[in-house]
Amino acid sequence: MPNLSPLFTPDEYAARLAATRRAMEARGLDALIVSDPSNMAWLTGYDGWSFYVHQCVIIGPTGAPVWFGRGQDANGAVRTCYMADGDIIGYPDHYVQSTERHPMDYLAAKLTERGWDAGRIGVEMDNYWYSAAAHAALDRQTRGVLVDATALVNWQRAVKSKAELGYMRSAARIVERMHARIFDLAEVGMRKCDLVAEIYDAGLRYDPKLGFGGDYPALVPLLASGADASAPHLTWDDRPLKAGEATFFEIAGVVHRYHCPLSRTLFLGKPTPTFVEAEKATLEGMEAGLELARAGNRCEDIANAFFGVLARYGIEKTNRTGYPIGMSYPPDWGERTMSLRAGDTTELQPGMCFHFMTGLWMDDWGLEITESIVIGDGAPECLADVPRKLMVKDG
Amino acid sequence: MPNLSPLFTPDEYAARLAATRRAMEARGLDALIVSDPSNMAWLTGYDGWSFYVHQCVIIGPTGAPVWFGRGQDANGAVRTCYMADGDIIGYPDHYVQSTERHPMDYLAAKLTERGWDAGRIGVEMDNYWYSAAAHAALDRQTRGVLVDATALVNWQRAVKSKAELGYMRSAARIVERMHARIFDLAEVGMRKCDLVAEIYDAGLRYDPKLGFGGDYPALVPLLASGADASAPHLTWDDRPLKAGEATFFEIAGVVHRYHCPLSRTLFLGKPTPTFVEAEKATLEGMEAGLELARAGNRCEDIANAFFGVLARYGIEKTNRTGYPIGMSYPPDWGERTMSLRAGDTTELQPGMCFHFMTGLWMDDWGLEITESIVIGDGAPECLADVPRKLMVKDG
Repeated sequence: MPNLSPLFTPDEYAARLAATRRAMEARGLDALIVSDPSNMAWLTGYDGWSFYVHQCVIIGPTGAPVWFGRGQDANGAVRTCYMADGDIIGYPDHYVQSTERHPMDYLAAKLTERGWDAGRIGVEMDNYWYSAAAHAALDRQTRGVLVDATALVNWQRAVKSKAELGYMRSAARIVERMHARIFDLAEVGMRKCDLVAEIYDAGLRYDPKLGFGGDYPALVPLLASGADASAPHLTWDDRPLKAGEATFFEIAGVVHRYHCPLSRTLFLGKPTPTFVEAEKATLEGMEAGLELARAGNRCEDIANAFFGVLARYGIEKTNRTGYPIGMSYPPDWGERTMSLRAGDTTELQPGMCFHFMTGLWMDDWGLEITESIVIGDGAPECLADVPRKLMVKDG
Repeated sequence: MPNLSPLFTPDEYAARLAATRRAMEARGLDALIVSDPSNMAWLTGYDGWSFYVHQCVIIGPTGAPVWFGRGQDANGAVRTCYMADGDIIGYPDHYVQSTERHPMDYLAAKLTERGWDAGRIGVEMDNYWYSAAAHAALDRQTRGVLVDATALVNWQRAVKSKAELGYMRSAARIVERMHARIFDLAEVGMRKCDLVAEIYDAGLRYDPKLGFGGDYPALVPLLASGADASAPHLTWDDRPLKAGEATFFEIAGVVHRYHCPLSRTLFLGKPTPTFVEAEKATLEGMEAGLELARAGNRCEDIANAFFGVLARYGIEKTNRTGYPIGMSYPPDWGERTMSLRAGDTTELQPGMCFHFMTGLWMDDWGLEITESIVIGDGAPECLADVPRKLMVKDG
C-alpha cells in the first residue's frame, strides 16, 4: 500500500480499471500491457521519472493492475501505487540496457506465471515507451497474439472526473501566475535563460493562498522570438530579447501531473501590421471555435470554425488546432486521441478538456494565443484567466 | 543553411558522419534511420522539442544527412541543422497521430525517391523514439531489409572531441553553482517545490563571468528524502524538508545539451551511524574506482573496485554504478552504450566521459555522492569541483 497520499479515491481507481476492462472486452483482449507513463499513472497512481527504462502496467482478466519495472524503481511503485506489494514486480538490473537480454523476456515469464500469456494481449504499438525491440522480444516469448491497443487507455481518460478537474483548475492558477511573471519582467535586453528561470520559479513555488506548489511540465517552456518563432519547438538560448520582435510563450501550469497549457505572445515595441492582423484573425477565430465547443458538437466543428475565420483573413494554418489534455508525462502534454482538425468527427462530451492550440507558425514570424477549455453543455469553461490578446510592451 | 550559429565546425560534423558511415559499412548497412534525438543532434545540429512526433535523420550511402520530421518542425530544422534546405523533409500534418496513416509511410516514399529503399537499412529498434508501430509501418512499405542498429551512432559518440569537452566543462560550472545554491538555502521547513525553483534558477541564469547560461536537463531534478530516498526516481512534491532526514540531489548542469550530472546528499541534523558508515564506504569505494578509471582498463574494473569496497562494508548495491554521458535529450542523460558493471569489458579510451553513479537506494534510506569524469591516460578528470562528502547542516 502506498506510503504517499493517493491523489484519488479507491472508487475512482476502481472505476478507471472497470472502464479499461470494458474497452478490452469490446476489443476482445484477454490482457493489456500499458507502457504509456500517463496511462500507468492514471490506472495505478505510479509516479516517477523511470520511463527511460522499460516498464509497464499489466491489466489481466481479473484482479488489480500489476506494476512491472526495474528493481530499483519498484521502491517507487510501492510508495505511489495503490495496489498491494504483491502486485509490484521488479526486474533484475542486468536486464537494463543489455544487448543479451530484454526486460520483456522477464515480463513474458511473469505473464506465464500468472497464466496471462495466452489469448489476445493488447500492446501500445505506437507509444514512445514501447519500442520495436520490446515488441519483438515480447512477441518471441509469449504464446499469445499481440494486438495493437494504442490509445485504448488514453481514450478512457478523455472525460475528466471532478477530482481531475480540480487539479486542472489548480494548474490554471499556476499558469496564470507564470504569464503574469512574464509580462511583469520581460523586456528588451533580458536574456532568455533568465526569463526561463523566472518562468520555472512562477511555475513551481508554493503559494500559501493557493495551498499548493507546482510540478514539472511535460514540455519545457518554448519561447521563440522573431523569425525563430516560425518554428514551434525551438527551446531557449542565452541571448537577449530584442526590440521590435514578438516572442511566444508556450507553457503550462502543472499540479500532480495535471496540465493547464496556455500560450501568449509578447511584442516588445509597436506591433507590426502583420501582428495586428494576425491577432485580430486569431481572436475572432477563437470566438468562432469556442462558440461551437460544446457537448454534442464534433472536434472538427471547432477546427472548421477557426480555420474558416483565418481563411477570410487570408491566413493558412496547415496543422491541427488542438488536442485533449489532462495528466501527462514527457514528452507531450497532449493525450494523443482526438485532434481538432477537419475529419475528426469525435463527439464532444461534458468534461472533455482541450488545449485550443491556435498557434500560427508562418515563414518568418509566429503568434500563439491559446486557451485550455473544459467542454460542457453550454459555453466551455476557459480554465485560466489571462487576458486573451497580443501582449505588448512598447517603450 | 542554419540561421542559428552552429555549435561545431563543418569538419567536426564531417568526421561524425564519416565515423558513422564506417560503422554502417562494418555492419553491412546501406542506409541508416536515426530516431534518437541525441544522435540526430550529434549528426546534424538539429535541436528542438519535437521528438513527441515521429522524426529521424537518414544517413544514405552518400551525401549529407537528411532530416525528416513534421512539416511545422522543418522550420526548426532549417534553422539548426548544417545541411542545405533540400535535405530537410517535412511531412504533412494529417500524418500526426492519425489512425489511418503513419509518418513512416511518408518516409518510405521519400526513401524510394532517393533510391535508398533497398538493401539493408539500419533502424534503432530499442530506442524510445522508434515505436513498434513505426517499425511495422516502415517494414510494410520498404523493399529493403530492416536491421537492428540500436546504439550504432551512440557508440560513435563515446569519445568526446575537444569542443564537446569544452561544453561539458561549462556544464560542470553550472552544476557547481546548483549544488552551492542547495547547500546555501536548504533547511528544515523549506518546501521541496521552492527548493526546485532555486535549483532551476541556479541551473539556468546567465553568468557574465562564465559568459553563458544553462539549458534544460534530460531529467528533472530528483530529490527524495528520508525513506522515500529508497526510490531513485521519485520527483518532488510541495512538502517541507524535515529534521533528521537526508535528501539526495541528483541534478545536472547543461550547456548546449551537454550534461554534467552530479549528485550530493544533504543531511539536516546529525547524521545517523547508517549514513556515516555509508558515506565512508562510498568515498572509499569511489577512490578505488577512480584509481582504475583510466585508458586501457575496462568498464567493469571501475565497478568491481567500487563494489569490492562496498562489500567489505556489508553494503550490497544491486544496480550498475555508472554510464557514459555527453549530449542528451529527455528522458535520459545516459548514452545507453557501456555500463559500469561486472561483465562490461569495454576498454576505456581517453575522452570517454562517465557519470560514476555510486548511489545507494536501500530499504528505507538513500545516499548519492557521485562524480562525472573524463577518462585520460592517468587519473581521470573530475569535471565538477564540489566537496565530495555527505553534506550536513546541523542546527
